Amino acid sequence: MSKLRLNITMSLDGYVAGPDQSEENPLGVGGEELHEWVVPLRAFREAHGREGGEVNASSAVVEGWTENIGATVMGRNMFGGGPGPWGEDPWRGWWGDDPPFHVPVFVLTHHEREPLEMQGGTTFHFVTDGIESALTHAREAAEGKDVSLGGGAQAAQQYLAAGLLDEMEISVVPLFLGGGSRLFDNLGDADVAFGQVRVVDAPGVTHITYRVAGG
Amino acid sequence: MSKLRLNITMSLDGYVAGPDQSEENPLGVGGEELHEWVVPLRAFREAHGREGGEVNASSAVVEGWTENIGATVMGRNMFGGGPGPWGEDPWRGWWGDDPPFHVPVFVLTHHEREPLEMQGGTTFHFVTDGIESALTHAREAAEGKDVSLGGGAQAAQQYLAAGLLDEMEISVVPLFLGGGSRLFDNLGDADVAFGQVRVVDAPGVTHITYRVAGG
Repeated sequence: MSKLRLNITMSLDGYVAGPDQSEENPLGVGGEELHEWVVPLRAFREAHGREGGEVNASSAVVEGWTENIGATVMGRNMFGGGPGPWGEDPWRGWWGDDPPFHVPVFVLTHHEREPLEMQGGTTFHFVTDGIESALTHAREAAEGKDVSLGGGAQAAQQYLAAGLLDEMEISVVPLFLGGGSRLFDNLGDADVAFGQVRVVDAPGVTHITYRVAGG
Repeated sequence: MSKLRLNITMSLDGYVAGPDQSEENPLGVGGEELHEWVVPLRAFREAHGREGGEVNASSAVVEGWTENIGATVMGRNMFGGGPGPWGEDPWRGWWGDDPPFHVPVFVLTHHEREPLEMQGGTTFHFVTDGIESALTHAREAAEGKDVSLGGGAQAAQQYLAAGLLDEMEISVVPLFLGGGSRLFDNLGDADVAFGQVRVVDAPGVTHITYRVAGG
């Protein structure tokens, strides 16, 4: 069964992005510090077309992010370009001409737009009829493989509250952002139960994998 | 050097107590579930005068809570008895005649009260002149051993924001409380940096120990 999987880095006080997100600070003020554990890794550098880098206990975790992933779903804020209609010269994502997804990516938005084909196998599809539709399209595109939930916090909350998330791997870093986007907020009366399935102790970060109960 | 150490269980959404705390629900609605990992353990049962119980990867963690501890500091809410003056027949804590501390306990309060000596070496002292004074008294009483910070969230936040906390061990459980007392809130502009020093993967809980940078 194709799973919906989330991998995300969270500060100890629960934030996945700092306050005041902008084009200059896509992860908000202080948000870049969330990813200080991943940027030096060889596995991360390779995925972004660079050489060298470190190998440590986080390496296998990062390599796992793309294993058996056939499609990605993400929120509009994660794709970027600000809120509202796409305009004349529309935003093409944060990731340059060859984004590190290499699979179809389904972007949740209220504003219609033609698919955007990038290099390296990444095509952005814009879905305007809700999270369930985006997941259905992503599952079809994944052809039996899993679907990754790229973020951000709002999209994750919606899938979590709807009981559609099968697995999450939270990378907890000892950082206090004090504001921004809190991952586990606005869950309403969501009746979801997760079990802990794996813990990885790595330099400066703890990776905890949870699977939905009965999943 | 005598350290101030915090051990506390936190839900995945950051709460150390659920909403609507009361005498019937000292940990708030749903808050008891936070401690489902610890209650069956032999180490926990022994500390509360009971026999039997399980042994697993959490056992050494629980045994460590009291190792080299010479005194405890806790907030008024953790000691209990509601807010305001102590009254005619004052509250004597949640723990019966022989509380599981067995060391001097310094309770932060705005209301003066004579020390309360219990069985088994626990004496509650009531400190009305602030967190630094309580810590000074606790350090003196600990005679070179460490001081444990018993909680709750507010007391922990105050010591953390003041840069007085040396070590914290957060036991993260896959539970969403959705409201209550969030541990890492109200930290203001606290400029504190912690490093990850130990991770324990145990059934239903991940224990992460952080030590203040340079500590």
